[in-house]
Amino acid sequence: MAAGSKATDATTLVDAALGGDRLALSRILTAVENRTPVGEAALRRLYPLAGRAHLVGITGPPGSGKSTLVSALIAAVREQGRAVGVIAVDPSSPITGGALLGDRVRMQAYSTDRDVFIRSMAARGHAGGLASTSTAAAAVLDAAGFDLVLLETVGTGQAEVEVAAAADTTVVLEAPEMGDEVQAIKAGLLEVADIVVVNKGDRPGAQRTASQLRAMLIAVGRANAKGADPERPRPKEPEVLLTTATTGAGIPELLTSLDRHRARGREASDTPARLARAEAQVWAILADRLRAELHVPANREVTAATMREVAAHELDPFAAADRLLAQLRPPGAGG
Amino acid sequence: MAAGSKATDATTLVDAALGGDRLALSRILTAVENRTPVGEAALRRLYPLAGRAHLVGITGPPGSGKSTLVSALIAAVREQGRAVGVIAVDPSSPITGGALLGDRVRMQAYSTDRDVFIRSMAARGHAGGLASTSTAAAAVLDAAGFDLVLLETVGTGQAEVEVAAAADTTVVLEAPEMGDEVQAIKAGLLEVADIVVVNKGDRPGAQRTASQLRAMLIAVGRANAKGADPERPRPKEPEVLLTTATTGAGIPELLTSLDRHRARGREASDTPARLARAEAQVWAILADRLRAELHVPANREVTAATMREVAAHELDPFAAADRLLAQLRPPGAGG
Repeated sequence: MAAGSKATDATTLVDAALGGDRLALSRILTAVENRTPVGEAALRRLYPLAGRAHLVGITGPPGSGKSTLVSALIAAVREQGRAVGVIAVDPSSPITGGALLGDRVRMQAYSTDRDVFIRSMAARGHAGGLASTSTAAAAVLDAAGFDLVLLETVGTGQAEVEVAAAADTTVVLEAPEMGDEVQAIKAGLLEVADIVVVNKGDRPGAQRTASQLRAMLIAVGRANAKGADPERPRPKEPEVLLTTATTGAGIPELLTSLDRHRARGREASDTPARLARAEAQVWAILADRLRAELHVPANREVTAATMREVAAHELDPFAAADRLLAQLRPPGAGG
Repeated sequence: MAAGSKATDATTLVDAALGGDRLALSRILTAVENRTPVGEAALRRLYPLAGRAHLVGITGPPGSGKSTLVSALIAAVREQGRAVGVIAVDPSSPITGGALLGDRVRMQAYSTDRDVFIRSMAARGHAGGLASTSTAAAAVLDAAGFDLVLLETVGTGQAEVEVAAAADTTVVLEAPEMGDEVQAIKAGLLEVADIVVVNKGDRPGAQRTASQLRAMLIAVGRANAKGADPERPRPKEPEVLLTTATTGAGIPELLTSLDRHRARGREASDTPARLARAEAQVWAILADRLRAELHVPANREVTAATMREVAAHELDPFAAADRLLAQLRPPGAGG
């Protein structure tokens, strides 16, 4: 299919999606996720319309109740009449997945509400591109008029934490009394938090967990302050809130806190989060183009032979990179 | 400092490390992890010496007992007189980390044994580079003469799973009776497993977990077979073994299974795992060079202005990538 007809497909889809067609919106998200030419064409058209939504990252260790909190947030936001989109980065496999089905089914309570749109994205198979892909998907929902876009990830992997951290506001969820290894993960997560939520607040130990977290955050704040850029004012320590997502307790307070954080970042278009998102997207595209260039017919053989030599330890990876760059840009070609 | 003196530093360090100096080895690993010029120079010299070790990825959800299993494996391998290196990709933060200290302390039982070398690597802050950095670190240990190199990661994040999956042999650890969300993670993990280990085999339900896993693996095998490349023979389904790492039960059987898997992949230098490692490393270097080029004085302003326009949604990320590529490679420069 020619590039022109891809652009036509994309134009049709974009017009439909902007007119409220949720199936078209879904198809655009699939195209964006798979990085197809239609996805590129659609995103080129939609991106300038985005930039108005509040992007909220929600992350936390397994078992902290993220999906339940997201459901509770959706209900509260809908009561305010706002449209809400969710990108759930799902660690389960596209093949054997489905163990999170219970949560997804719960969310389908909103399947008849046009102002709630929930999308799962597989985390696997996006080497290095998870942040850019989920950011692009969020931009699509933003352009389509969703006022709040939630990016939900399991906060145990590097890439998954980066997704949530690239949001305008990052909520880190904790549950009382988690195991040791989970505690370690938690420590890494706290660094990216704008708001910390101790969920399952009705459990014994919830208040104690909240106190411990506040103490830990002060310690992190001090450690960070040492190496901080003196040009940039250190953001205040994150709030610690208690919620019980299953009953809705604490959810209105969380919404208020989110709105307050949104208002603070609203004036500037070059907040660190917005710049980080821009960079993640542009880098992913540059990397895609570089990769594509190495696989055009003129370069394919050299690339494959080079990788085989590196695999056999006959060539070191730096020499391999030099060779491939020379292949892409012959000597004297400038740059 | 001039590039020449960096090379001299690296030569000195490499000679010392190859002579058995563990502090020098440690310094090389730090330089490789931080991607310094010394790290590059050292790796250029060490890489051709690597390719002999057996790289084993060990991954699994939090609480499956990875570190205990690694300790048990070290003990068993040392009884055979082989030298063993461990790269533990640690999800805890460099700032607030240390919650995994218990495990690390246990490993320090080997601190006087020169043929055991354990290194923790922080998972955060290596956007897109975790696989290449840990692979490079493994190559350093390989070149230094460690016959077995274990890459230990928490298998809950995309990048972390890729690290383990890029090993010659990937061991996925499970524990009986884990929660629902962990089950979902497990499903994704099984796809990368060469050997599945149900640890904590003395717990009730261990045998049942092993049976369930075997059934699940057959299902995964069937699903994969549908989309498989018919040119490449489908690898046989992974074995499922039971261990109790705390007592050492099942560890000799695991070692036997590892050796068997090693023998199978030994003939070819272009196994999928070796090619994947080669590509991860070369890509990371190419990306670093591209990034560096965008930040040389001649390009820095254009890059920063472009990112600001994307952040403000005045420019879409594809147009931004086009502009930056044109900046790097003026029209008519070929390529």
